[in-house]
Amino acid sequence: MNVLVINAGSSSLKYQLVNVEQHELLAKGICERVGSAEAFHKHGLDKNEEVIDAKMSDHDDAMALVLESLTSGPAKAIDSLDEIDAVGHRIVQGGKYFDRSVLIDQDVIDKIDELAELAPLHNGAALMGIHACQKHMPDVPMVAVFDTSFFQTLPPKAYMYPLPYELYEKYAIRKYGAHGTSHRYISERAAAVLDEPIEDLKLITCHLGNGCSISAIDHGVAVDTSMGLTPLDGLMMGTRCGAIDPAIVPFVMEHENLTGAEMNDLMNKKSGLLGISGISNDLRSVRDASEKGDERAMLAYDMYSNSVKKYIGQYIAVMGGVDAIVLTAGVGENCEKMRRMIFTGLQPLGIILDEEKNRQRGFEREISADSSQVKIIIIPTNEEYMIARDTYDIVHEQMRVEGTVFDEEPVLV
Amino acid sequence: MNVLVINAGSSSLKYQLVNVEQHELLAKGICERVGSAEAFHKHGLDKNEEVIDAKMSDHDDAMALVLESLTSGPAKAIDSLDEIDAVGHRIVQGGKYFDRSVLIDQDVIDKIDELAELAPLHNGAALMGIHACQKHMPDVPMVAVFDTSFFQTLPPKAYMYPLPYELYEKYAIRKYGAHGTSHRYISERAAAVLDEPIEDLKLITCHLGNGCSISAIDHGVAVDTSMGLTPLDGLMMGTRCGAIDPAIVPFVMEHENLTGAEMNDLMNKKSGLLGISGISNDLRSVRDASEKGDERAMLAYDMYSNSVKKYIGQYIAVMGGVDAIVLTAGVGENCEKMRRMIFTGLQPLGIILDEEKNRQRGFEREISADSSQVKIIIIPTNEEYMIARDTYDIVHEQMRVEGTVFDEEPVLV
Repeated sequence: MNVLVINAGSSSLKYQLVNVEQHELLAKGICERVGSAEAFHKHGLDKNEEVIDAKMSDHDDAMALVLESLTSGPAKAIDSLDEIDAVGHRIVQGGKYFDRSVLIDQDVIDKIDELAELAPLHNGAALMGIHACQKHMPDVPMVAVFDTSFFQTLPPKAYMYPLPYELYEKYAIRKYGAHGTSHRYISERAAAVLDEPIEDLKLITCHLGNGCSISAIDHGVAVDTSMGLTPLDGLMMGTRCGAIDPAIVPFVMEHENLTGAEMNDLMNKKSGLLGISGISNDLRSVRDASEKGDERAMLAYDMYSNSVKKYIGQYIAVMGGVDAIVLTAGVGENCEKMRRMIFTGLQPLGIILDEEKNRQRGFEREISADSSQVKIIIIPTNEEYMIARDTYDIVHEQMRVEGTVFDEEPVLV
Repeated sequence: MNVLVINAGSSSLKYQLVNVEQHELLAKGICERVGSAEAFHKHGLDKNEEVIDAKMSDHDDAMALVLESLTSGPAKAIDSLDEIDAVGHRIVQGGKYFDRSVLIDQDVIDKIDELAELAPLHNGAALMGIHACQKHMPDVPMVAVFDTSFFQTLPPKAYMYPLPYELYEKYAIRKYGAHGTSHRYISERAAAVLDEPIEDLKLITCHLGNGCSISAIDHGVAVDTSMGLTPLDGLMMGTRCGAIDPAIVPFVMEHENLTGAEMNDLMNKKSGLLGISGISNDLRSVRDASEKGDERAMLAYDMYSNSVKKYIGQYIAVMGGVDAIVLTAGVGENCEKMRRMIFTGLQPLGIILDEEKNRQRGFEREISADSSQVKIIIIPTNEEYMIARDTYDIVHEQMRVEGTVFDEEPVLV
């Protein structure tokens, strides 16, 4: 089964075409700056990628370009759209409605639309992606995979904010989390690497990219996570401040004469590593500056590692211990210095990094010392794989129910 | 030396008269609802306390009543104001200027006034108390004891918020902490109870009253604390929400059409235990309701204990371990059920509550099991004692420098 995985952002459209049974990536690409004069389209696998300046006034145009590149031209992957068996869409906000991935129908579309209130940029973009696919491939089944559904297992004490209860009833203000597909993937892979059933493990999963989140996964069940109502909550990030004294918000709005939207912009786009260092939201640039003695870059580095360290401590307390800490995404996978700083001082808690293993590059790997009670594991994340797999599972089950396939179980679980 | 300890709130004035050398409390009382028609004045030690309805249009009036009650009437403590040797004032916000208690002069008054921006209700009230004392006792030396000064040892990675650096430069937005006098007192007393030098200990101190804060005190030095720019940050409290997703603030302001001041009011006075339970900000009432099966009361109880548990975990990670966890204030000293919930599940971290000791009442005491690696200690707080002691030390030293006393060292250290 060939699954087209779509990840639509407010001005971008990322995609992969995957043959699920063969575990084969057939094509991938991205349309960027959709709707602007600088729009462009990158398409193809690493060795024969091409970048095309292209007019795209909206996601519908972008989708037409994507489907054209998949079926024609130098980097074509399939002969016709008939070879796309299903589409999987990444949806940021599934709210309280979706505790798992679902087949998309009108009711699902309506709910995604309703939830756009909580994630205006993201859910709106996803809907554009869905509508574009409906137009160009009306008969291909589509599946929605939500960033939040993995966290629908959180207990009320973890997802409620200590605000007036009426705000929860009226606006559904609560913690939803984000990056759920990534946390789900790396927790499953970590159990595989440890060769233990996930039901026997206490895991802390750390997705440290430009956006950052940490989750506590207790015997396979997510029990807490750092992102909240929105992906601004929790850790310090590339450009986001994470959780702060909420009294700062009205204070800054008043003194700087900012609207709510401008304040959100300040907290989401001008804070974090960028805000403190004044240099970049990219940890590599901040690291380089800090190594040249830039004091604000050093401070940004310190604050970032301290923020991660504190969440690890929190979730050890929440679960009453931890068997393995799992790292992924740009910073988690690639920045040995940040990893060293995060784990420095945690030796008395049985968490010991192996300096040599930490320096080595590679794919999935353990980087804790043999003497470490707690394993530290790096797992490169693969949200697209999870979306393709969920899509495959759901569409395959649907076909089985409808009698269009005859095997009892999907070949891939 | 008799020291008058003054704790002025926005509409209250609490006081104690203490003979420091003799460790003797001579009188205490409180003026409440100052400035309203329902103003009243409680004065006297427990056995002969009297409550007087009294007119008090401002803190100046209240101070006149206090001094009158101290020197005349049925519960008088001294014959004349000449027997008051010094006054110690509790000041909430000392900002970056004060890392210790100081003798009050015009420069100190100006700085407290400047810092009122960061704590409008509290610093303003303290200034009213200082001015009233200046008027009624112009020649008595006064000392300012700051709630924040104990936390001036925090490293930048702990006190900076990951916001644009310019906000720190322009408005001094950073973590200052609060309850510092209480954390200082209970950490010193805990070391005494453990019979170990505080310089050898890693302590987590938990002030759990209507306001709640937790601090990490590493070898006698405060390295982190949960309250921030304001006392709204950190833990869930009686009526305060603590740290939340900051994106919630503009969201609620917009949807409920609230000003910044109204939003602050919602987060400071209508949230926390009160907001979730809908019943009370008093943990005893919430506990009673939860025991009768009220679901929101049970949730509030769960959230509160979870919030404390998470901070304990954080600070274990920050210090790389902990020798003792110290509890104080209304909830910390008196609520055995909350203590049990906080420590449930922390056994794998070497933190084991002794159920029997937890049930007993008493003064300073250990409530951890003999097998617990980490000690759990209850210390009733005594901020007034610390203020009296600091006042004594500073005034005594001043007198020594001026040659009005001749002993080389204060008798009390």
